[in-house]
Amino acid sequence: MSEKIPFTDFQKLDLRVGTILEVENHPKADKLYVLKVDLGEPIARIIVAGLRTHYTHEALKGKQAIFVANLEPVNLRGVESNGMILAASNEGKSKVFFLKPEKQIEPGSKIH
Amino acid sequence: MSEKIPFTDFQKLDLRVGTILEVENHPKADKLYVLKVDLGEPIARIIVAGLRTHYTHEALKGKQAIFVANLEPVNLRGVESNGMILAASNEGKSKVFFLKPEKQIEPGSKIH
Repeated sequence: MSEKIPFTDFQKLDLRVGTILEVENHPKADKLYVLKVDLGEPIARIIVAGLRTHYTHEALKGKQAIFVANLEPVNLRGVESNGMILAASNEGKSKVFFLKPEKQIEPGSKIH
Repeated sequence: MSEKIPFTDFQKLDLRVGTILEVENHPKADKLYVLKVDLGEPIARIIVAGLRTHYTHEALKGKQAIFVANLEPVNLRGVESNGMILAASNEGKSKVFFLKPEKQIEPGSKIH
């Protein structure tokens, strides 16, 4: 297990529930999707996600997932990603599953 | 939204899938449960969770949820908690839902 951290380190993260509105293939990276995500803000965000080998478009579109909402934007092969989707993977990475709230909730709901 | 953080701040957190093995009422705090959680380690952890007004014992026992696994231990009204369960809440906190992997996965699976 990793080094222990104080609760204040956890609080730096802004984790939010988001609803995946659209799923497109990344034009230049065959393992990446470009998601449009409603995080409860006026404008949906573009978030690049490495889920293309694990989920179809249909399996993601309309679903709720959990996102890190306050990461510095990063350029991923020409697409600016404004956040990161959270997913669990087992040791051999044979299973990769996104995280979701136990029941549907308003997009933008904060994780504590 | 919160201040932007670099990816390295996210990496400090060790988020894991855990299976809730047992649920008990906290002896001194009526909003808290004391959970015994399998995080894929040899010994299950004791983790205090503020879900008592939101979920029954039966609704939690046996379920998978997401935990911060590397927080410094904290003493919560006499019980040492060795981690934290993640939950989403809407603005008025009328809804509080724990997070889970989209499908069942090995306890201890890491969140990326």
